[in-house]
Parts: sequence; structure tokens; C-alpha cells
Amino acid sequence: MTTVAAYAAPVTKALLERTTIERREVGAHDVLIDIKFAGICHSDIHQAREGWGEAIFPMVPGHEIAGVVSEVGSGVTRFRVGDRVGVGCMVDSCRTCDNCEADLEQYCLNGATMTYNGIGRDGRPTYGGYAQKIVVDENYVVRVPDGLALDEAAPLLCAGITTYSPLRHWNAGPGRKVAVVGLGGLGHMAVKIAHAMGAEVTVLSQSLRKKDDGLKLGADHYYATADPATFERLGGTFDLIVSTVSAPLDLDAYLSLLRTDGALVNVGAPEEPVSLDLFSVIGGRRTLAGSSIGGIRETQEMLDFCAEHGIGAEIELIGAAEIDEAYERVLNSDVRYRFVIDTATI
Amino acid sequence: MTTVAAYAAPVTKALLERTTIERREVGAHDVLIDIKFAGICHSDIHQAREGWGEAIFPMVPGHEIAGVVSEVGSGVTRFRVGDRVGVGCMVDSCRTCDNCEADLEQYCLNGATMTYNGIGRDGRPTYGGYAQKIVVDENYVVRVPDGLALDEAAPLLCAGITTYSPLRHWNAGPGRKVAVVGLGGLGHMAVKIAHAMGAEVTVLSQSLRKKDDGLKLGADHYYATADPATFERLGGTFDLIVSTVSAPLDLDAYLSLLRTDGALVNVGAPEEPVSLDLFSVIGGRRTLAGSSIGGIRETQEMLDFCAEHGIGAEIELIGAAEIDEAYERVLNSDVRYRFVIDTATI
Repeated sequence: MTTVAAYAAPVTKALLERTTIERREVGAHDVLIDIKFAGICHSDIHQAREGWGEAIFPMVPGHEIAGVVSEVGSGVTRFRVGDRVGVGCMVDSCRTCDNCEADLEQYCLNGATMTYNGIGRDGRPTYGGYAQKIVVDENYVVRVPDGLALDEAAPLLCAGITTYSPLRHWNAGPGRKVAVVGLGGLGHMAVKIAHAMGAEVTVLSQSLRKKDDGLKLGADHYYATADPATFERLGGTFDLIVSTVSAPLDLDAYLSLLRTDGALVNVGAPEEPVSLDLFSVIGGRRTLAGSSIGGIRETQEMLDFCAEHGIGAEIELIGAAEIDEAYERVLNSDVRYRFVIDTATI
Repeated sequence: MTTVAAYAAPVTKALLERTTIERREVGAHDVLIDIKFAGICHSDIHQAREGWGEAIFPMVPGHEIAGVVSEVGSGVTRFRVGDRVGVGCMVDSCRTCDNCEADLEQYCLNGATMTYNGIGRDGRPTYGGYAQKIVVDENYVVRVPDGLALDEAAPLLCAGITTYSPLRHWNAGPGRKVAVVGLGGLGHMAVKIAHAMGAEVTVLSQSLRKKDDGLKLGADHYYATADPATFERLGGTFDLIVSTVSAPLDLDAYLSLLRTDGALVNVGAPEEPVSLDLFSVIGGRRTLAGSSIGGIRETQEMLDFCAEHGIGAEIELIGAAEIDEAYERVLNSDVRYRFVIDTATI
């Protein structure tokens, strides 16, 4: 075991504090990663405050991890010491079910092992990226291409893949009209990626406060959802809407913005159930769907795509002592567009 | 104008009574149809009782119409006097929008003209199939193949196409596991059609009361949804679930029965909004969708498919005087499986 400095929530809803955790010895197929940067994802807050149900404490959040390999196990073939790598939301899965075999480990039928707030295959709790080191099986590690800075790459491991995967799956591309709901950590990545894929991109945000940013990030259009006229004007417009917000959404209103056969895909997840009029999907054969991160192969594909298109996250680099303040600012939608912890400060 | 005997609801929630209505003169592109049989669809009741919103009265319901052509306009090319024909839920559409041009008239962007409780292109209310005759543009009339009896064909015009279309669109067929929720008018057609398409078919019904019927209709499996064990046993099983019920559904429970990338498609429409936990679609990248009848071309394809596979509706033939009693029995799920009015009794 190796003792590692980390930031943890000792109990639910507590402030995060500096502590130490134990990482397992580097096994034959493991890599030891010196974490350099860890993004702060809204879901870190949901989980640290048990908004999505009972959680495991102490909790070291963080599933947007970028760092450098500092040791490899004897059986590791894909990585060498010094490689720039990333780890996202999962660190293991059963590897044998239909979904794992189809590179859809995120939907592992036996349950993927989440990077934190999970139980590892060894029966011990997993601890995430708000820490100086992590040990991960090489099959759940991806390579950060040279063109990407590590700090701007970290948020790609969740915010990037979470938006890239549905954009690919629902065919964002030339000739397709894509709306992105919410211009936060996930939303700003969705805009950049959908634009790079060649889609016509519209941001649907509560207000026009971030409009200039949105257009710079690659949006073609920007509308305020607080203005009811937006819903009248845009009825029946989009092939695909990716909702990145975790506040409860008026699903019926957003579904009305879809063309026939269009899809509203939720990657944000409100803590409470939402209301839906089924006529909203029956009319126009519309689809309401969800998507959860992406598989390991697709995560690598996303990083390569981002490197090719010069896409990193827009980040605000912080020290570990500022995590709690950052959480409050995330909850107030006051971040442009992702907080990233410099783990040297832990 | 031609005066035609019909059964109508004079005002909302009233009993239906015999009356007369006016049909337009047969125009150049119209056919006059002697209606022989009209199915009773649950949506007739929803509309006659304004469960789906304000309606037009007097209302002559009926959009499962089978009859014989008795007169054709000078420009009619597709039908001749004596042809056995059907009319479904719509009698016109704009014919110029993207959807009309793509044979998706049911999603006409300018609004299809519904067979009853609609306003025709001439600005007058439309009246449905609980009547002795109807005048319809030939482009919205389909041919009933010789192999199908007219009385058993009538329900295909709504119940048949409403289930055929999503089964086709979401690829029911060999190697696919399809569940049908509810074994009523729509459900029993869904079972027959999905079975004929080669899918493995499961009925999910409240109780096992109709199990023998379900298996005879073509189901491979039959489960009671009132038994919580059903939801445990069948978790993650189906590629496609077609829900035909108009009672509010526990969407989260049904979504949990889908495999990764599976779709729950609603063709039944409850009068009230339903609750949904978005995690139910995010997990397993599941889809909640809807589907509304089918286009005219697809309706003809469905009739041809049914004739080829010897599929008619299971019907209970009634006289017009029994309509109100039949409505009550439909509401009590006491019909096996579709009431069809012999319009000679009007």
C-alpha cells in the first residue's frame, strides 16, 4: 500500500479537508499515475452531498484525472513511465458481459467500478482524483495526445466524453441542427465538439449572459430559455438536443423544439423525477433518451478527436484549498467553464 | 351534399345517439365509400369525453373504417366502384411539407386532417366512421387486400398501423425481444404483428387473466405486471417495449426492463402527465419514444403484410345501439379484442 495525500469529504455534506488515503500496490496490469490535474464535475457535488442517494464516506471525489505514468506493472503493455494519461469515471468493469465486449463498459451489466464512491473488484472503496496519485488497471487508462495540455485535458475525461458520446451516437454532423441546453462544464464541451463535428449549433441557456462566450466557443445561435418567445420561435427545429443541466427541465417544452424523429438526450441528471406528457413524444415520433459517459475506446477516440481539432476545456485553475468555494460557485453557475485542481497544492 | 345516417355524441360526455350528417359532394379526387364496418378505438372515448382536451361537437367518432367504393370522382385513378377499401385516422394533410413528402403524413408539419374531431381543408368539421357513408380524397384511402375480411380489417386502420409502424421503425424481427404492454385492442394487434415479424414476443399485462389468449395470438411469454417479481425477473431483457395502455404507466419500472440501447415506445396516451426519473434513460442509454399511427403508404404496407400473414383483428361485432355499452366495456378492459360496429344497423 502507498499512502497518498488527498482531499476528502469525511461525511455527507461536509466541507472537504486534507487527509491521506491508501492506494493499492501496483499489480501486474496496473499503472501508477502521478495526478497533475483533477477537474471538478457537478456530479462530485451531487455525490458528496448524497443528492443521488446514499454514498460512501470518507469520499475523495474526482473523475476527471490527468497525469503522468510513474510506474507500470510487469504485465503492462500499453503504457510506459512518463506517458501522459487520463482516467475518467470508471476504473474497472466485468470485462466479460455483452456490453464490456462491445466497448460499452460504462453500461457493464455487472456494474462498472466507478472511480470514486464505488467498490473495487477487491471489495474496497474507490477514491478519486482529488489526490496526488492513483493506481489503475491499464485497460481503464487513456492516452492524452501531445497536442493537449494536461490541465485542459482533465475535464475531457468526464465532460468531454459525456457530450462526445451522445453527439456521435445521435449523428451530430454536417446538415444537422444540434441544440445544447446549458452552457456550463458539460455544455461548453458539447458546443465545441458539436461545432467541430460540423453541426449547426444552438445554445439554449437561461439568459443571454454568456452569449458572447457561446458564440466564441463555436455556437451559431444563442437563445435565452427564460424568454417564452424562444420556445415559439424554435418549435420543430432540432434534430438533436443535448441537455447538460441537472436542474429539472420542462421536458415537454424542450421536446417541442425537436423535428420529427428528433432526440432529446439527457446527460445531466436532476435529483428529482420530472413530469412528462407522453403526447410530447408521440407527436413527431420524438425520442427522449439518456447517455452516460462513454466506453474506454470511445474516450480515447474523443481525446484524439479533441487533439485533432485543438479542443481543450476552458478552465479556471485552483488550489485544493479552494475546492469548497469552487463547489459553491458551480452550484451558482459561476464558473467559466470548469474548475481544475492543481493537485500539487494538495 | 349528401345526408347520411350516423351516430354522434351531441355534446361532451353524452351518450351517442342516431342522427344525420352532411357529406360533401364527391369531388374530382374523392371516393364515396359505403362504410360497412367501423371499429371502436379507445381514443374515440378519450375524444368524445374530452379527455385529451377540447373537442368539436356534435362528434361522429370512428377512424377504423372498412367499406366499399360506391362512387369515384372524375380524376380518381387508384380506385374503382366496388373496391374494398379502408380509411384510418386521417383524411388529408398538406401534401407539401417535408413529412408529407417523406410519406409521414401523420406528422404533417401543417397538421394532418383527422378523420373526425378535426377541421377539413374546406373549413368544416370532419365526421368519422360511425356512419353509413364517407367521402375521402383517394390519396388517403387504402386498399383492403382480398384475403382480409372487411370486419376484421377495420381495426387494422388504427390499431394495426399504430402498432405496425413502431414495430417496423424500431426493428422488431428475428433475434429481437419485444414486449407488448397491455393486451387490448392495440396490444393484441401488436402481439400478432410482432410475432409475424419473427420477434420473440412477451405480453406484459396486469394479470394473467388473458394468458391463454395471449399465447394463442402469438406471444412466447406472458407475465403479470401486478406481480412485482415480474420486474425483477425481466430486468434488462427487451430490445423494444411497445406500450399500448392509456393508463399512466410507471415508466421507470418499464424502462428497467430494457436492454442497453433499448426503446420503450408509447402508442397509448394517458390523459395526465407521468413521472420520470431521468436516470432510467441515462443508465443503459435507453430511449423513451412515442409513435402515432403511420403514413398512408405504410398503412397499405401493413394491410398487405397482414393479408400475407393471415392477420385480422379479433373482433366482437355489435349493432350501433350497443355503442355506449361497448364504451363502458372498453373502459373496463372487457373486450376481446375490438368492438366493430356493423354500420348497417345505424
